[in-house]
Amino acid sequence: MKTMNIILMGYGRVGQAFVRLVQEKQEDCREKYNLRLHLMAVFNSRGGLFLAQDDKDRNLLADFEPGSNPEKSVFWRPDLALAEALKSFDAGVWVDCTPSNLKDGEPGLGYMRRALDAGWHVVTANKGPLVVDFGGLWKKARIKRLSLGMSGAAAAALPTLDVALKALAGAEILGFEGILNGTTNYILTRMGKGMGYGEALREAQQKGIAEPNPSQDVDGWDTAAKILIITNAIFHTGYTLADVRVEGISHVRPGLFLEARKTGRKIKLIGRFIQRPRGPLLETRIAQLDSSHPLFGVDGARKGVTFFTDSMDSVTVTGGKSDLRGAAAALLKDIINISEGQI
Amino acid sequence: MKTMNIILMGYGRVGQAFVRLVQEKQEDCREKYNLRLHLMAVFNSRGGLFLAQDDKDRNLLADFEPGSNPEKSVFWRPDLALAEALKSFDAGVWVDCTPSNLKDGEPGLGYMRRALDAGWHVVTANKGPLVVDFGGLWKKARIKRLSLGMSGAAAAALPTLDVALKALAGAEILGFEGILNGTTNYILTRMGKGMGYGEALREAQQKGIAEPNPSQDVDGWDTAAKILIITNAIFHTGYTLADVRVEGISHVRPGLFLEARKTGRKIKLIGRFIQRPRGPLLETRIAQLDSSHPLFGVDGARKGVTFFTDSMDSVTVTGGKSDLRGAAAALLKDIINISEGQI
Repeated sequence: MKTMNIILMGYGRVGQAFVRLVQEKQEDCREKYNLRLHLMAVFNSRGGLFLAQDDKDRNLLADFEPGSNPEKSVFWRPDLALAEALKSFDAGVWVDCTPSNLKDGEPGLGYMRRALDAGWHVVTANKGPLVVDFGGLWKKARIKRLSLGMSGAAAAALPTLDVALKALAGAEILGFEGILNGTTNYILTRMGKGMGYGEALREAQQKGIAEPNPSQDVDGWDTAAKILIITNAIFHTGYTLADVRVEGISHVRPGLFLEARKTGRKIKLIGRFIQRPRGPLLETRIAQLDSSHPLFGVDGARKGVTFFTDSMDSVTVTGGKSDLRGAAAALLKDIINISEGQI
Repeated sequence: MKTMNIILMGYGRVGQAFVRLVQEKQEDCREKYNLRLHLMAVFNSRGGLFLAQDDKDRNLLADFEPGSNPEKSVFWRPDLALAEALKSFDAGVWVDCTPSNLKDGEPGLGYMRRALDAGWHVVTANKGPLVVDFGGLWKKARIKRLSLGMSGAAAAALPTLDVALKALAGAEILGFEGILNGTTNYILTRMGKGMGYGEALREAQQKGIAEPNPSQDVDGWDTAAKILIITNAIFHTGYTLADVRVEGISHVRPGLFLEARKTGRKIKLIGRFIQRPRGPLLETRIAQLDSSHPLFGVDGARKGVTFFTDSMDSVTVTGGKSDLRGAAAALLKDIINISEGQI
């Protein structure tokens, strides 16, 4: 039985969903992967909760109800330092669930660097650090022969990186395009049925699909961040957001949906990486898809991505839950694949 | 630089496409995967072509034109014994491209057993041996810590097993369903446009999509074999063809297509594995899909598969070239992933 020690940084909605899933899947991981998941510490910005080293066999998860406030636990230590936790246990996986910040990547970026320096693998649901310093994190991980699990930041439960790197191994990826943001796709799908932008956005917010401040989604930045991460991970490039031509959805006029409907087409926000004679292009753009397009059927909050290859033609993946449990499942997947030496 | 020695058994159309692809991708594999592909022998039922051990740096591939008859090469040896070849080189990957025989799995099955016994990984484009003795081959491979690469036999360039085992790691697969045979899907797509069965079949044959004897495809056996392999590989079960309820497409009456068209549906041959209260069910069946079904858009000779999971919802993969190059690419993918310890 392998043991994977886990430190979780960030105990918001994704972090809590991750703790719940780890708890639920513990038996399964032992049976299927011969893997013991040992969640040893949970941090938020105010301190940490952890299991003392002389108490190794006790499971932290038993000590608090997932969803509850860890600060109420008897193990809560406002003074617990990160450095202390990183040194206290045998290095395993550092899981970052801090809020996404596409500007400077903090606080996640600093934490990830420290975790890698201390010999921990990193798995992240947070796009910020990868968008800001993909190259630096990648290099740090490579030098120390550590893994950087990015599924949670690259469309989460929709498999993108595993497909590109494993299922298409040996094929050259010539480009890819995807519907990578559930919120904008939901809004555009509703607008395709005749709803106005404001109304569709409000409905998405009421359903918990769109954030109260939807700018990161509707202005195209979330899609841009995802294609950036996928591109850098596949091609080992060091593109940043400044290299992406970003278009959002808020300016799309209702007439476009009418025209599209008449010709049997749909309006989608596509993020894509393509090679052109004058160089590669990274962009998010409003596109009209006809029914022969492999992403035509990807409606509502669903996502999908198509990879174009030289030897396997195009391969499309769609689906994967766009919710907290799906995000947690993507984190767990990376941890399992790291434990098997497969990332 | 790792070196992977390769012996190819079977030099028909898939085997030749494999040799061509290995030749084409050699540089790429060195650069991207630090992997030297060393094709050391090619066998067919009449003998073998190989590179002498004292001539290791020479590449067999340079010695004959792919697509030509290996028996014309100066290296052709009608007396070359398999046992000799298996012992002559450091064990690497045995690639099986012998004709598929769903009845007794031969000649591939016997060859694969010998290759595994001699310490070679096995990668196969041939469904026969896996359908007949999945359990035995799997056990043999596990005991010797060898890999069994089955992508080429499980829908080839459409990724099925990598997605199920890696991209969905940690999620419980509750069931799956797929359009897994390009020939029948092509015929049904044409019938959906008003063509009769006989006419559609002849067109498929003229285009090289259907075999002169189409029975294995149109009677559902190819689809049945694929769901069997995928099921056994995911769940480590030992189902055989006798456990699959098999329906083909030749009996489907034209009226069904008319009805389907009226309600915006399509007729597809679905292969599926589902769990029911009274036990699991493996079947191929004619189904009517409506436009919300994730496989609705999979038309013509294209393929697709949907996996249903507990934590990631459903994930669908479509596409992947249904041709010789796609089959060869699936074999190469497995070899690369084996070289990285990932199968």
